[in-house]
Amino acid sequence: MQTTVSSKSREVVISDTGPTILIGERINPTGKKKLQEELLAGRLDLVRQEALQQVEAGADILDVNVGATGVDEVALLPEAVKLVMEVTDVPLCLDSSNPRALEAALKVYEGRPLINSVTADQASLNDILPLVKERNCAVIGLTMDEKGIPRDAARRVELAHYIVDRALQVGIERQDIVIDCLNMPAAANAEASSTLIEAIIEVRSQLGVNMTLGASNISFGLPDRTLLNGVFLSIAIHLGVNCPVVDVAKVRQYALAADALLGKDQHMRRFIQDYRRRQKQT
Amino acid sequence: MQTTVSSKSREVVISDTGPTILIGERINPTGKKKLQEELLAGRLDLVRQEALQQVEAGADILDVNVGATGVDEVALLPEAVKLVMEVTDVPLCLDSSNPRALEAALKVYEGRPLINSVTADQASLNDILPLVKERNCAVIGLTMDEKGIPRDAARRVELAHYIVDRALQVGIERQDIVIDCLNMPAAANAEASSTLIEAIIEVRSQLGVNMTLGASNISFGLPDRTLLNGVFLSIAIHLGVNCPVVDVAKVRQYALAADALLGKDQHMRRFIQDYRRRQKQT
Repeated sequence: MQTTVSSKSREVVISDTGPTILIGERINPTGKKKLQEELLAGRLDLVRQEALQQVEAGADILDVNVGATGVDEVALLPEAVKLVMEVTDVPLCLDSSNPRALEAALKVYEGRPLINSVTADQASLNDILPLVKERNCAVIGLTMDEKGIPRDAARRVELAHYIVDRALQVGIERQDIVIDCLNMPAAANAEASSTLIEAIIEVRSQLGVNMTLGASNISFGLPDRTLLNGVFLSIAIHLGVNCPVVDVAKVRQYALAADALLGKDQHMRRFIQDYRRRQKQT
Repeated sequence: MQTTVSSKSREVVISDTGPTILIGERINPTGKKKLQEELLAGRLDLVRQEALQQVEAGADILDVNVGATGVDEVALLPEAVKLVMEVTDVPLCLDSSNPRALEAALKVYEGRPLINSVTADQASLNDILPLVKERNCAVIGLTMDEKGIPRDAARRVELAHYIVDRALQVGIERQDIVIDCLNMPAAANAEASSTLIEAIIEVRSQLGVNMTLGASNISFGLPDRTLLNGVFLSIAIHLGVNCPVVDVAKVRQYALAADALLGKDQHMRRFIQDYRRRQKQT
């Protein structure tokens, strides 16, 4: 299964056999007060800075999310997308729960983006899937509905099936649907990661689609977050998550190590190259 | 499945639901020139030092191996075992391919040790299994035979079945057999880790026994070994390896993170405690 996304000048392929594709998570104001303030003031300096830093750190794709209370996403998301396209050449993941913001961002985007995201909620499916089909993009499906994120794995798997079925019905190809089984803080719920692992294994084996995951949520509220995120990311990559949304500067080395060990990095070239880069920096 | 080992004063239980039990690998002269020289001279200062440091770093069990060219293991293994019992109170894993050395070490050992190891080789099975039965110990079975380590997973699984069957025949309980699917350097063979993962999954699901693994071999000849070992250890713990042989000072944090995320550490108490300990050290 291959999901192809692109910028004007660069193509990125998400697949089982290729390297893990890292989607940079940092352009997202959730929990980032300074970025929220900037976006509210219509300023994009931090967005530019985060874009450059993440690509420097090895991001393959950048997620662009400007959603915060009081921000007009319909106006600002396209501006942020234009800016990021100016300063980097990686493909983008247009991230909003507002279909009109996604539509506006799609109008300015040059290439084939990933749309983040559709849920199993009827409104979301009705608004976003036709957009994905019309613009011939790839889309991330979140295994949640209007009632929120199911606590059990079986229901998340059902919702993944439902999203894939609905997407296929409007003519989107299976390879262009990427499923996110939704990472929840382990500190709040002792079963969070075992439920998630179960959902990932089942979605993977039943649907065969490519999979993403917001890898940093698991450690929310815990110490030593980079280690926890890195260890969970390693396990997730083994299970078939092949385009996680991560803080690239912090956990890329775990993904590269996992790829090297799991046969996704021929002659371990990428791992060794990155090791040398890190040695130079210290 | 519970494997119980003990020292004179402490019991350690290896199980699916409990924490990952770490067997300290450092008392082993393979690849350690200075330790080889000391052992050849009959000196045990480094053995004492490694024992203390590993227990300080959080080892649950210590492997004791004095096998090097020119060393009389029958004489020296019991001496090393006595010394380690004097300076620490963790259970030991008596490690030798020489049945007489194991027999001599068993005579001085106080408690219920793990014997490392038996292979599917007839001589090994004939010599070691009766010893394990007679002394009521637990034993590690290596999935190799007189032809060496099979390159393919299926044959390793066959050998695991064979060792377990032979052990059951002499009256050893299934819970007292721990299987090691044998970690090989990934640098020498691109399929090393995928083969190993396949073997672990199959042994686990077909035999249900507890599992160990020499976690450091995978990175032999590669840079950034701690990261590679830690990432592979995380995946191995997820697969059911519950008493790996490791360099505890280097990779314990990965095991604790994996346990915390996989529901093997209630309220993440051990992870948080170890985090605080590490913070104090820096």
